[in-house]
Amino acid sequence: MKNMDIPRLKQIVGENNVKDDPADLFIYGSDASVHRAMPWVIVRPEKTSQVQGLMKFADEERIPVITRGSGSGMCGQTVPSHGGITLDMKGMNRILEINPPDVYCRVQPGVVDDDLNHALKPHGVFYPPTPASSRTATIGGEIGNNASGVRSVKYGATRDSVLGLKIVLPGGKLMSFGTRTRVEATGYQLHKLIVGSEGTLGVVVEATLKFVPIPKFRCLGLANFDRLEDAGHAVADIMAGGITPSMLELVDNVAIKAVNKTMNLGLPDVDAVLLYESDGMVKEAVDYEINVMKQMCAKHNGTGLQSSYDAKERAKIFMGRKKLFPALSKFSELHASTSLADDMAVPYSKMAETARKIHDVAKRHNIIMTAYGHCGSGCMHTKILMETSKQSQWNSARKAVDEIYEYVRSINGTTSAEHGIGISKASAFKAEKADSLELMRSIKRAFDPNNILNPGKMMDAPDDWVTATDLRYMVDA
Amino acid sequence: MKNMDIPRLKQIVGENNVKDDPADLFIYGSDASVHRAMPWVIVRPEKTSQVQGLMKFADEERIPVITRGSGSGMCGQTVPSHGGITLDMKGMNRILEINPPDVYCRVQPGVVDDDLNHALKPHGVFYPPTPASSRTATIGGEIGNNASGVRSVKYGATRDSVLGLKIVLPGGKLMSFGTRTRVEATGYQLHKLIVGSEGTLGVVVEATLKFVPIPKFRCLGLANFDRLEDAGHAVADIMAGGITPSMLELVDNVAIKAVNKTMNLGLPDVDAVLLYESDGMVKEAVDYEINVMKQMCAKHNGTGLQSSYDAKERAKIFMGRKKLFPALSKFSELHASTSLADDMAVPYSKMAETARKIHDVAKRHNIIMTAYGHCGSGCMHTKILMETSKQSQWNSARKAVDEIYEYVRSINGTTSAEHGIGISKASAFKAEKADSLELMRSIKRAFDPNNILNPGKMMDAPDDWVTATDLRYMVDA
Repeated sequence: MKNMDIPRLKQIVGENNVKDDPADLFIYGSDASVHRAMPWVIVRPEKTSQVQGLMKFADEERIPVITRGSGSGMCGQTVPSHGGITLDMKGMNRILEINPPDVYCRVQPGVVDDDLNHALKPHGVFYPPTPASSRTATIGGEIGNNASGVRSVKYGATRDSVLGLKIVLPGGKLMSFGTRTRVEATGYQLHKLIVGSEGTLGVVVEATLKFVPIPKFRCLGLANFDRLEDAGHAVADIMAGGITPSMLELVDNVAIKAVNKTMNLGLPDVDAVLLYESDGMVKEAVDYEINVMKQMCAKHNGTGLQSSYDAKERAKIFMGRKKLFPALSKFSELHASTSLADDMAVPYSKMAETARKIHDVAKRHNIIMTAYGHCGSGCMHTKILMETSKQSQWNSARKAVDEIYEYVRSINGTTSAEHGIGISKASAFKAEKADSLELMRSIKRAFDPNNILNPGKMMDAPDDWVTATDLRYMVDA
Repeated sequence: MKNMDIPRLKQIVGENNVKDDPADLFIYGSDASVHRAMPWVIVRPEKTSQVQGLMKFADEERIPVITRGSGSGMCGQTVPSHGGITLDMKGMNRILEINPPDVYCRVQPGVVDDDLNHALKPHGVFYPPTPASSRTATIGGEIGNNASGVRSVKYGATRDSVLGLKIVLPGGKLMSFGTRTRVEATGYQLHKLIVGSEGTLGVVVEATLKFVPIPKFRCLGLANFDRLEDAGHAVADIMAGGITPSMLELVDNVAIKAVNKTMNLGLPDVDAVLLYESDGMVKEAVDYEINVMKQMCAKHNGTGLQSSYDAKERAKIFMGRKKLFPALSKFSELHASTSLADDMAVPYSKMAETARKIHDVAKRHNIIMTAYGHCGSGCMHTKILMETSKQSQWNSARKAVDEIYEYVRSINGTTSAEHGIGISKASAFKAEKADSLELMRSIKRAFDPNNILNPGKMMDAPDDWVTATDLRYMVDA
């Protein structure tokens, strides 16, 4: 650990906004990924000028700076693998402007997603890129990862909603990218480049976001499938069927069994479940879309078709999906639910094949993997349930992840749909984008010549994620 | 003019694909902007390997390369202000794949927008970013400018539709950016950076584009306004009204008078006209949106409200807008319709104020300016009608353009909505993005270290567009 000039940091951001207590450092040493590495110090700025002061100091002293929101990232983006300052942005959490006539809002990066939507609600609008972690995830973190979520199939990802950004560069310069207008063709769109850059190019201190009307009607449906492949065909037909669902989710049998085992929900023990939703201002249009989706499910042997507009009924239908994370966590005393190969995107027509591949690979390597996700966006998630205390299980997981990503590349899929790269997915990322890594490094140098911003991530992360950092699990020697 | 090695070029791209006849060079010396500058040679590659060979040669010899589609750009993007090779991409015009289940197509850059949509139609889908020039504009040119058009309010701009790009870098390296999937969070999104980069970063040789279903119902409405400001208020209310029009167009009195004068259409001589459209798969939903828009127009004193689903009726309603360009061209023997300050985007609430400002500035400088555009996207277009033979009119136009762009910046608008920067809008662009020009130059260096790709444009264009190149009009001394 570098000997940090704590008094100087306190001068820059205030006495109470600097922490180097080991207990705090420990907390900031992990996120929702498998990784752990301790920062040297935690700094919590309250305003842009403090971020500028800090970035000037850090650049002069060549100290790594890791920007962090709520630490719900799944690939180790905010784990300080090279040490340095963790910049906790949750202190900058003000909503600066809500402008309904011009259809945008301006927020600081520490605003929590659900809090923004709570503030937007009285205006009859919402901010669509809502990840499963929206109760804690910050707008800044979502920008860092180009987060999306269940509604991305209709409403797009974070990049689609960001109109402009203010960022602080290493050295302290404040830059303004983008606009407050709906369209722009004014040179390189640097704000779009910042989205998904995982804190490697600049520190976001303000975002201008567009929002959309809250639909008056929302209808959620469900179909059971005895064969995963049938569910996959239904997805492809729905997406080519001339409609735009507001949600289209796949849940596999591994997940269903986990939910039934731990939550006692009594879901039918089928091979796959599809959840489909339509929303809109006019009930007839929602009816139409739901009917198309039911027809496509029925055509491919979907059974138990049901749907409802009623909020309570919808919650019941969605229960299996909603309880998936806690169910996986409680699956067994021995098994932990780990974020590994947790996120990929594939062409629609390959959804079922991908899920099947995941199961096959898991079986072969003696681990448990579930496949689920926002299949309307081609997004496939997995969790690996494994005995994290056993080194052999990590070796198996490493092989399984490699095989799955090799397969994903072979079908023109991509390494991440919405969780980003960080450390865990770096090897797959480097294989997928092999020919543009040098260009990405050149771009990083243009923003961050001394490489202080989140060093050692994405194109600069080690190839083996198992040994890249300590693991945040106790592993028997 | 540099002494070009014509035999070498013919070796690279084939005997018949190299032209240096002065008549050809003259044609390729201008586009739809006011500028003129001759290329040294025109090269028309037929395949990617030829582009690679050419880019290797040009980079070694430090020869400027200007990529060109149909030359319908309005700001001089394809005018070779520094000479060099004009790379005519219209020879690479194949549609490589149409994939309905995975909802994407792959095309070469020379494909004309309307041709792509013609090919997509049997599949029940369309490619939405359709500029007014879609009969001639190529997909490559639209990517270069981040083109959009009347339907961008609902369907977004080119950047929103591009999933992936293959580009050739100076030196000849072929790179693949992006994916074939709907969402992606896999590192820096270089394909999104290429969109709107006006041929300064690489030569696009293939694009993967998403498409959307052709709506079954389309209804177009019209409202007349005695006060431009009322039309502006109607626009802001519509955009905050919980609906998503598929088109929302403003036409001002200058344009109406021009159409009436030259086309004898007998349109009501009102201060402004709004055209509003809704489309969808369900008639009730389209009815609902049209009714909301009619109500908003009526609330703000709109009169003569009419709407129709019928294709012929819709064509009649749209006639005034459609005839705008030819009407302006034929306005008078003395006046030419020039693309200057032709394109900006402003917040919705400032649409009317912006149009009024444009009229005021024009009057003060003794030129004629019309204001119209895709106000649902905040996009405002103008044309300057002026006596192009008079130097004094160019001086007036220069002042008018400067004043208008200064105003646009003051209300948080942006220099270009969809036509790009090129040469004509460089001074406004440089003022708007002053603090990020150096960063843009660094990014360009990362892609193009020898600055051969479209040099002297955007951040590197001269401040005075009037003297930046020859004008393509005869101006009396």
